[in-house]
Amino acid sequence: MARFGLHGSLLAAPGQRGALVAHMLEAASLMKDAPGCELYLVSTSEADDDAVWITEVWRGEADHDASLSLPGVQGLIERARPIIAGMGEFVRLVPQSAP
Amino acid sequence: MARFGLHGSLLAAPGQRGALVAHMLEAASLMKDAPGCELYLVSTSEADDDAVWITEVWRGEADHDASLSLPGVQGLIERARPIIAGMGEFVRLVPQSAP
Repeated sequence: MARFGLHGSLLAAPGQRGALVAHMLEAASLMKDAPGCELYLVSTSEADDDAVWITEVWRGEADHDASLSLPGVQGLIERARPIIAGMGEFVRLVPQSAP
Repeated sequence: MARFGLHGSLLAAPGQRGALVAHMLEAASLMKDAPGCELYLVSTSEADDDAVWITEVWRGEADHDASLSLPGVQGLIERARPIIAGMGEFVRLVPQSAP
């Protein structure tokens, strides 16, 4: 089974980047205990006031998919939805080593 | 001091992606011992036969800059140069947590 990775950005509603970062750090905290989660990194960028970057590495894509059903995850998505204006491009990665 | 991150892609010369991955995994191995290196992830992408993605997290930008002077790093860059056709966009990140 190949490792599975994702890198991309969420765009916060105006003025809501800090709140979106807080939500995504909460997601990172949930994912820390998710089976097969090897990395869940939340970043901002000096060049873009609205973007929140997410970089994920999973043991396999099935682990990623299963994580969406973990307790608390759907509730977190629902709470984040109003402060997300859109999504940037997400690139599917094949990590070549453990993070 | 804010954490410093980079995410972007190198484009391998035709047919050289495997060789470029091997070089970058050697870089990852060197960086594992570099002061302040928290993540040096090498990935490919199913969607692009030439790209090698690099995701780095450093304790600070000064640590990243200093790593370029570590023993072996310049030699590795010289050896990789002939198999690199170009660089994709690199995004500077401000990681919001430890990887």
